[in-house]
Amino acid sequence: MPVTADNLLDHVQQLVDERDIKRVLFEYAFHLDAADPAKMLPLFTPDLYVAYGESHGASGPEEYLEVLANNKTGIAAFFAGTSHHVSNVVIDFADTDKATVRSVLYAWHKYNRERPDGIVYAQYHDVFVRTAEGWKIQQRKQLTTGTEQYHARPETLVMAPRKSKET
Amino acid sequence: MPVTADNLLDHVQQLVDERDIKRVLFEYAFHLDAADPAKMLPLFTPDLYVAYGESHGASGPEEYLEVLANNKTGIAAFFAGTSHHVSNVVIDFADTDKATVRSVLYAWHKYNRERPDGIVYAQYHDVFVRTAEGWKIQQRKQLTTGTEQYHARPETLVMAPRKSKET
Amino acid sequence: MPVTADNLLDHVQQLVDERDIKRVLFEYAFHLDAADPAKMLPLFTPDLYVAYGESHGASGPEEYLEVLANNKTGIAAFFAGTSHHVSNVVIDFADTDKATVRSVLYAWHKYNRERPDGIVYAQYHDVFVRTAEGWKIQQRKQLTTGTEQYHARPETLVMAPRKSKET
Repeated sequence: MPVTADNLLDHVQQLVDERDIKRVLFEYAFHLDAADPAKMLPLFTPDLYVAYGESHGASGPEEYLEVLANNKTGIAAFFAGTSHHVSNVVIDFADTDKATVRSVLYAWHKYNRERPDGIVYAQYHDVFVRTAEGWKIQQRKQLTTGTEQYHARPETLVMAPRKSKET
Repeated sequence: MPVTADNLLDHVQQLVDERDIKRVLFEYAFHLDAADPAKMLPLFTPDLYVAYGESHGASGPEEYLEVLANNKTGIAAFFAGTSHHVSNVVIDFADTDKATVRSVLYAWHKYNRERPDGIVYAQYHDVFVRTAEGWKIQQRKQLTTGTEQYHARPETLVMAPRKSKET
Repeated sequence: MPVTADNLLDHVQQLVDERDIKRVLFEYAFHLDAADPAKMLPLFTPDLYVAYGESHGASGPEEYLEVLANNKTGIAAFFAGTSHHVSNVVIDFADTDKATVRSVLYAWHKYNRERPDGIVYAQYHDVFVRTAEGWKIQQRKQLTTGTEQYHARPETLVMAPRKSKET
């Protein structure tokens, strides 16, 4: 739809919303790489759901904080450093206050113990909602495309058409 | 050129066009990683030309589909999975309906057979045109910067100044 | 702040500025990968400062050009090729003509001599200013998150909270 005087405000509002949504994705990565879970939680709504696989995930900030900050299995306990690179962001608005957001992740992990660095290739499939404090993540599903030397074998959910080829 | 009431519509139209063009880049990567050539083709114009090297490429959707979907050499036949990360997108409009678009690619490839995963570093140099169905890729030239453990030795077209140093 | 007729021009000016700032980041990477320092310098202001670590950096275009183009230690002398992937760009405007810009870097380096390719994970923390010729980088601080098989051991400045864990 071409930009006209009549739809101008809507177009600009959408561009601003998209910019703000992308910023949340990047702040998430930044605070994750800083091993700072307390700064990650405000990027989510109180009714957040974060799925790491078909069978497990975190509901609400308390559960999620436990996943991130656990002193045995949390990010700082496990990794000496990480670098999360988020790109290919595609945003679809369900309505003016809700959007589905897809992005692609390259994540490097340096372990606290002696072992080769691990790489994760994944997609984030998010639901964002507009709140009084700006856009926040309500749901996040991480679909793993593949890994290299990563400690966990993730459930691979991407590339279903190929899976049948492998069997 | 500062944004003024007089040029406002043009500025916003250009921002919207840039957003739409980037989306095509990201949809391409998404459908490629899903090994779904049928969804990649509509991102191109009927007179598409896709160059993979100095000497070979595909002209038109039929040839391109054969490259992508061939059951011996196509993407799903060759790779168990891929992850394409597109960034550094720079867009120049030749006119309101045509743009040259440059981006940078990191592409991970997991093979169907036993061998180390292959990485490709490349640049996409694209020509986009506005059609009745939105922006589409008319020409795509992939210039390979380098590879790691990739099965094919691509013609390296980037970094010409350095090539002379290597001889 | 919602987009209204009253703040519309400001919103669009900011979106245009952000687009222009991101372009500078990507042009920098492009010319760096082309080993073309002469095209990198105009992306910076005359009073540029580029810091590569806590203890060393370049002040002004002459010093910076020497770093980039030195025929023994410069980019073309050292690397047969590089690929710089910049993402996660977050922009904060100090005022209408100045912005702090944070981004994340994945950089691949192929050496001129026989040794494995080196990867650098880093963050750029930049100060941009608006000049008569557009947005330029006034200050750039590169904080290294980690490396793989890189020839130099960078001072790791990211992830301070984790550092204490390692000791």
